[in-house]
Amino acid sequence: MTPPDHRFLRALRREPVDATPIWIMRQAGRYLPEYRATRARAGSFLALAQTPELACEVTLQPIRRFALDAAILFSDILTVPDAMGLGLHFVEGEGPKFARPLRDAASIRALGVPDPATSLRYVTDAVRLIRHELHGRVPLIGFAGSPWTLACYMIEGEGSASFARAKALALQDPALMHHLLDVLARSVATYLAAQAAAGAQALMLFDTWGGLLTPTMFTEFSLRWLGAVVAQVRAQAPEVPLILFSKGANAHLEGLADTGCDALGLDWTIDIGDARARVGTRVALQGNLDPAVLAATPATIRAQAAAVLDAFGPHPGHVFNLGHGITPDIDPAHVAALVDAVHELSRRG
Amino acid sequence: MTPPDHRFLRALRREPVDATPIWIMRQAGRYLPEYRATRARAGSFLALAQTPELACEVTLQPIRRFALDAAILFSDILTVPDAMGLGLHFVEGEGPKFARPLRDAASIRALGVPDPATSLRYVTDAVRLIRHELHGRVPLIGFAGSPWTLACYMIEGEGSASFARAKALALQDPALMHHLLDVLARSVATYLAAQAAAGAQALMLFDTWGGLLTPTMFTEFSLRWLGAVVAQVRAQAPEVPLILFSKGANAHLEGLADTGCDALGLDWTIDIGDARARVGTRVALQGNLDPAVLAATPATIRAQAAAVLDAFGPHPGHVFNLGHGITPDIDPAHVAALVDAVHELSRRG
Repeated sequence: MTPPDHRFLRALRREPVDATPIWIMRQAGRYLPEYRATRARAGSFLALAQTPELACEVTLQPIRRFALDAAILFSDILTVPDAMGLGLHFVEGEGPKFARPLRDAASIRALGVPDPATSLRYVTDAVRLIRHELHGRVPLIGFAGSPWTLACYMIEGEGSASFARAKALALQDPALMHHLLDVLARSVATYLAAQAAAGAQALMLFDTWGGLLTPTMFTEFSLRWLGAVVAQVRAQAPEVPLILFSKGANAHLEGLADTGCDALGLDWTIDIGDARARVGTRVALQGNLDPAVLAATPATIRAQAAAVLDAFGPHPGHVFNLGHGITPDIDPAHVAALVDAVHELSRRG
Repeated sequence: MTPPDHRFLRALRREPVDATPIWIMRQAGRYLPEYRATRARAGSFLALAQTPELACEVTLQPIRRFALDAAILFSDILTVPDAMGLGLHFVEGEGPKFARPLRDAASIRALGVPDPATSLRYVTDAVRLIRHELHGRVPLIGFAGSPWTLACYMIEGEGSASFARAKALALQDPALMHHLLDVLARSVATYLAAQAAAGAQALMLFDTWGGLLTPTMFTEFSLRWLGAVVAQVRAQAPEVPLILFSKGANAHLEGLADTGCDALGLDWTIDIGDARARVGTRVALQGNLDPAVLAATPATIRAQAAAVLDAFGPHPGHVFNLGHGITPDIDPAHVAALVDAVHELSRRG
């Protein structure tokens, strides 16, 4: 068992730590040659994500290489819509697509909450296996996509620069959009609670497209349902800390903190000290080095890591991370330089 | 001659207007069938932008169709680096590329300020022709890219999600980056002043990638050089109003207003009333309807336009626009609905 006083879990609870914990979004990813080898063996991204043994293997790869303070389940936010029957597949070089996107009210009204014990069993199996294989070395994070973000993909059927179809539905038939978001909130909360029951020791909710909304629409269509997910997860898994990351939504930090989550993820376009001044000690903060810094020299990486640590200051409640996922072009030696710098520079006593 | 009391120019000067003026970023673009026909005739985007008669034709097309309050020169922000010798070309479906990107200090130190009278003559010729063909119907806007944005493209050699090369150079050799930004600021200011001398009645500076920076880097590498361009344009063309648009940089509105520009462009992720409360009457504000709204029904477009007008309130100093460029999928009838709604809903007395 991971001790409950691991520095990652302590930081999420805003308790003092011996050094600032760090993990990296997309740490199990294409910048690692061992990931690319496993991915090639799996044949497809989806086979990798849906085979517990392979998902476990790539989840552990960065933990073996670096002194990271948390593992994160290798999966995809679109597993939930897939389990709802939309038919997820990945087109090489084009990203995710759904065979059956939501194009009418009837298909939205027909959606139900998927049972994690059946259609998402491969995820909870992976969580159990990873927990076993981690041997308590570091805590395991489970995750899901936010209702708004999932709705965007489900309505468009694929990624989009603007998600204009989803926004048009929200503006033209808000009742129908809220029906969809309600089903998604219950699905996501049930899914996150199932990951916690299978062994995930922290949970993260990715609101990838909330930042594309006007303030009014963000409050109504994204934030409201983030709050619903937090409340429902709290009720089902009260002990498991929940991190909320709404990319590009720095204008809404106070509202995000008010959801009752334990921590907020931050992108790099805000000073983490300013963010802390705004949300106080209500939540821990996770972030927020610009991922592009990892393309610079180790000396520059160290200096920029120091700047983030200094901006946060000597308070409890900081989990170091990038402000967005690591990119495939990064030299793994630069990741090692970052992880070591964060631990060395933040060492207490 | 366009009267100097045209409502677009009055709004930029924060003077009362009979109705809120509107123009649309990328109003001369692929959503118009007549644009697609002229583009096909030109053979390439670059031929279209570099042939004054064709650039004039597409600039005028949206003015013929809609009751827009300003025309904007059809051109590209990368004309300046092209004139500096980098070899601009467009690869179908991939966007702009430079044949000779900046990959070492020597190539940066070798750059000079291009003379608008020679290497950018096709632009000033287009401005003169458009002014003549407009017959004073609406004012003409000239534009350029910001020093930081141009540096990003010049260092990467093409578009990028992260511009990690440009950021690494800024962090690792700030003196060299500032040398580049200084040359670019002087080039851009000279270029904008030449457009004004040729007849442009307002100027706009697009800081497309400033919003990808941390607050510290934004201040040092983007904002500082925006201020330099504004000051130099002011000195060379004191009568011509200057609009600054730093996409995704809503956290920095106060600093942007302090540059001494006349107006700030806003994306749609901020309430325009909140923006006005922050910058006061120092600048006019241009924006900020979510471009995705144009994919909704005309009734929804009208309601959302009303929401933006209401958020700004009954003060002088509003130029209506989208928060980003119009997308190629939009029905021109929806643009007409927007333009008419803005004029009708804002009509005074």
